[in-house]
Amino acid sequence: MISAMLFDVFGTVVDWRTSVARELAQAFPDEDRDWDALADAWRAQYDPAMAPIRDGRRRYTDLDVLHRENLDALIAAQGLPDLAEDARRALAFAWHRLDPWPDSVVGLQRLRAIAPCATCSNGNIALMVNLARHGGLVWDAILGAAIAQSYKSDPKVYLKTAEALGLEPASCMMVAAHNADLHAARALGFQTAFILRPTEHGPGQTKDLEPEDDWDHSVSSLIELAEALG
Amino acid sequence: MISAMLFDVFGTVVDWRTSVARELAQAFPDEDRDWDALADAWRAQYDPAMAPIRDGRRRYTDLDVLHRENLDALIAAQGLPDLAEDARRALAFAWHRLDPWPDSVVGLQRLRAIAPCATCSNGNIALMVNLARHGGLVWDAILGAAIAQSYKSDPKVYLKTAEALGLEPASCMMVAAHNADLHAARALGFQTAFILRPTEHGPGQTKDLEPEDDWDHSVSSLIELAEALG
Repeated sequence: MISAMLFDVFGTVVDWRTSVARELAQAFPDEDRDWDALADAWRAQYDPAMAPIRDGRRRYTDLDVLHRENLDALIAAQGLPDLAEDARRALAFAWHRLDPWPDSVVGLQRLRAIAPCATCSNGNIALMVNLARHGGLVWDAILGAAIAQSYKSDPKVYLKTAEALGLEPASCMMVAAHNADLHAARALGFQTAFILRPTEHGPGQTKDLEPEDDWDHSVSSLIELAEALG
Repeated sequence: MISAMLFDVFGTVVDWRTSVARELAQAFPDEDRDWDALADAWRAQYDPAMAPIRDGRRRYTDLDVLHRENLDALIAAQGLPDLAEDARRALAFAWHRLDPWPDSVVGLQRLRAIAPCATCSNGNIALMVNLARHGGLVWDAILGAAIAQSYKSDPKVYLKTAEALGLEPASCMMVAAHNADLHAARALGFQTAFILRPTEHGPGQTKDLEPEDDWDHSVSSLIELAEALG
């Protein structure tokens, strides 16, 4: 019995790497760089930036702010040309314009016919709303980090999300392309679905290439998940 | 310039009175009562129940709990037959199954093509999610009381809703069938749209039969609002 599905978004529902690389290339039109590698370098700061918040060493600060801080650091570290404030702010919002994976819109539509589907992402609400509208994704609710005022894999994020829906963890299924996310959710009693996204990190991806545990479902797309549940 | 529309829901988007009267009648099949009047009596406890929370005398308690407390009081006060716990719980959730006004689904669809549309209601998240799915309403986000941990017209509820969307009040429009809601929003700098719902309280309705101020828009349906904005 699944009363709701909770979704990781970056990497699971949207392809951040291709989209961010494209936005970086557009922001620095005179530069000849490996934009995929720069997208990776920007993303590499994501987890370290959340760590002090998870640990309680830094007050909750939303992902838009962390993305901006990380962009400033990236520009400095990579010797990219200076960007005016407006352009810098616009580029930090590249994360609001990530394209969905090809199966995501239809898959989510089919999954919503089975049970409510909510985000359980580290993205702030404005980011998630814009991302959904950019890609044509429809959610029943935007939950996750913002309502818990912490970041995954802090148990609070999963638990507050289920609580907001009035549900126990056991009746919710966490859907993610990342084994670590599912480990954290399972430890709290959630059902689990692994979506294989073998090119999230590009052709050289080395992690999350297979389910690391006997997740309740392990599939290659949201459409396949809908078929498995339907 | 409207960057988002924020919606009151009970009375503005859904017809609570007809739906609650129907659920009450179904819950007490052997009783011959004025179900509309009982729906009114249940609803009459809504504002007094929120008052101590708004004033800080009671810790934030979600609307599902208040609806249940108010139902228990209604059953006692009206001498209705005792209801078993399961039936009582199901009836308290009547507020999750309110029908939209005839223009709401299409109107909201058209308004979402103009700008993001979020709830700014006193309803808790689970209630709003179920209500939306019951009626076929699609929201960009469920905001309002739950994220502010208070009830309208506490300014915090409007301000936290705009903040979650990353927006200033001036770029958001509050949409409501209640002049008081719009007065509170305008005082904080929000744009305002009044939707005339002359039968929210039945044929004898005495309040909110006209706009009490020069709201930015005053219309008779969400479809009309979309036409005015489009």
